[in-house]
Amino acid sequence: MTVRFTTHLADGREIFYFDRLPGADRSAVDQRTDLPPAHTTSQIRWDPLFRDYTTVAGHRQQRTYKPPADLCPLCASKDGKHTEIPADDYEVVVFENRFPSYSLNSADVVPLIDEPPFRSGPGAGRAEVVAFTSNHDLPFSQLPPEHVRTVIDAWADRTTGLSAYGSIDYVFCFENRGEEIGVTLSHPHGQIYGYPFVPPRFYKAGEAFEHHLERAGTCLQCDLMKAECEDGSRIVTTSEHWVAYVPFAARWPYEVRLVPRRHVPDLPALDDAERDDLARTYLTVLKAFDGLFDTPTPYIAGWQQAPVRRAREVWHLAAEIFTIRRAPGKLKYLAGSESGAAVWVNDIAPETAAQRLREAVPT
Amino acid sequence: MTVRFTTHLADGREIFYFDRLPGADRSAVDQRTDLPPAHTTSQIRWDPLFRDYTTVAGHRQQRTYKPPADLCPLCASKDGKHTEIPADDYEVVVFENRFPSYSLNSADVVPLIDEPPFRSGPGAGRAEVVAFTSNHDLPFSQLPPEHVRTVIDAWADRTTGLSAYGSIDYVFCFENRGEEIGVTLSHPHGQIYGYPFVPPRFYKAGEAFEHHLERAGTCLQCDLMKAECEDGSRIVTTSEHWVAYVPFAARWPYEVRLVPRRHVPDLPALDDAERDDLARTYLTVLKAFDGLFDTPTPYIAGWQQAPVRRAREVWHLAAEIFTIRRAPGKLKYLAGSESGAAVWVNDIAPETAAQRLREAVPT
Repeated sequence: MTVRFTTHLADGREIFYFDRLPGADRSAVDQRTDLPPAHTTSQIRWDPLFRDYTTVAGHRQQRTYKPPADLCPLCASKDGKHTEIPADDYEVVVFENRFPSYSLNSADVVPLIDEPPFRSGPGAGRAEVVAFTSNHDLPFSQLPPEHVRTVIDAWADRTTGLSAYGSIDYVFCFENRGEEIGVTLSHPHGQIYGYPFVPPRFYKAGEAFEHHLERAGTCLQCDLMKAECEDGSRIVTTSEHWVAYVPFAARWPYEVRLVPRRHVPDLPALDDAERDDLARTYLTVLKAFDGLFDTPTPYIAGWQQAPVRRAREVWHLAAEIFTIRRAPGKLKYLAGSESGAAVWVNDIAPETAAQRLREAVPT
Repeated sequence: MTVRFTTHLADGREIFYFDRLPGADRSAVDQRTDLPPAHTTSQIRWDPLFRDYTTVAGHRQQRTYKPPADLCPLCASKDGKHTEIPADDYEVVVFENRFPSYSLNSADVVPLIDEPPFRSGPGAGRAEVVAFTSNHDLPFSQLPPEHVRTVIDAWADRTTGLSAYGSIDYVFCFENRGEEIGVTLSHPHGQIYGYPFVPPRFYKAGEAFEHHLERAGTCLQCDLMKAECEDGSRIVTTSEHWVAYVPFAARWPYEVRLVPRRHVPDLPALDDAERDDLARTYLTVLKAFDGLFDTPTPYIAGWQQAPVRRAREVWHLAAEIFTIRRAPGKLKYLAGSESGAAVWVNDIAPETAAQRLREAVPT
């Protein structure tokens, strides 16, 4: 049972403490008197040629960039230092990003423009930061399973919370780990974006779920999982409630899809047993990634949940975890083909990647 | 008038020399006797969930990685060294990549699999390398305009050449410049991919052109160009035949769309005057990019041409040039939002980017 305590930072942003047991005092008040009011000009613009939204967030250029450890904004506030987290200790914390890509406030300051071909509007979503642990040096993969369970509960709780805002159409919980992929704060943390539209990749997946149900009468994700289990060559690890495999058409050197065996649309729909099992299985997958190389593997991990208002019945939850490292010291860059044409070229066969990941699963 | 001379390398790959004037002797024979036959297992796999092709090219893991300058495979062959280019000098050369993402030969060795949900087939396309100049240290932006004209003619010629293969559906000419975006050979060069399918980004643009023509009766690219010229705030430079502007919904910190004023589908359709003017205008844009920072700007530049067999009537050619550098020493990384959800967050407003690029245009 996870306990949530909600309060506000000095500039009005929300902060949520998640604890495994009741009793912890998280009522500390943010002591910072010099914090300017949170302000954002986040804007979404429509690209009529490539039929995508782009988000323009000019205020983010000034965001905190690789601060020294003693100025870490994600550590707890103590020894006279005031961070983003007022309490002097915490388990898992979620708070609104001070340099957000999206903000509900932007609706008040960013106009709606509808002068074709120019169309834009406020980025009326939300960007939250998840501090996974108060321990500055403990990577996610080293957290105890019961602590990961609290993280999972926090993700699920915030998914429900953000889904309640009328302007938010998709909730995306993700972690960027490693300087190689541009992480500017080394404290173990993830992010939650409440997008004011359904991201194009997930919009397409929603359509794929719908088409497959119409044509085959079954869930595409369920069918893929069954086919992978029968084939076996791309399976990384399985557990009572979860299956982890490298997709047949993986885009990245090492990429894992982690799927619940039960057909559920999103994290809030997972039951207790599935969450406990997820904590262990997710750790197994992350440890396999870290076992691939001599140094910690940079990775991106994200939850593909059902959109807030569409394709919910047909959607089947999955996590996608991948690294851009293709060999020690060598990264997969998104150059002309990927960034210019949206065509991924993967130098490692998915069956090879799965075998190496299986070998890296801790015993 | 550009002259082309075609021959073969020791392992059977094609090589094309392009010269501004007739008379140069490019008949030198590839002296390498130890070159193994070109071999590729390039495969395209269908991803039924995100409805995309992924290319799997396992043989590319062994490709040449940052060789020292005296072992550069793109320099001319002389002083007893045998490179990929047998002649002892050249102007512009195109040849088949020895570690290709696509190869027509793959059709002979890679099976077609159609066992749903698993569907894959040979990557029966082509990957070519364009050496822009024999001068190892001269970046594209420093080439003389008449030399750039030869590069343009080479791009146009290879577009026509690759379009003639029945299995190639799209010809993409592009340049990756800079270690920051993963370039493994420093000799100034670009690439040409003949994709065995229409890349998803261009497939969507083809549909956008078609829908706009149906609805508005006009060309979307023409309309965008006119609207940008009238607005003016995102224009970077214009010339008699070309307009360069930062798109309203630009995804990258600095991004330019370079469009011919005349409605043409692809590079081969450009006339002499448009090509000469392009050589000068393209150099102006590249020099503006290099003027943004104290060190050479890493960039990706690619030509958005009409697909070989569809949407040709409605398509309007453009080049896209962009950098991932958002500030000195700071890159825009494609992390969770971009790589996981396909949502680009741009920290620099397009109007700001256009102003800085205009200020960096050489006078």
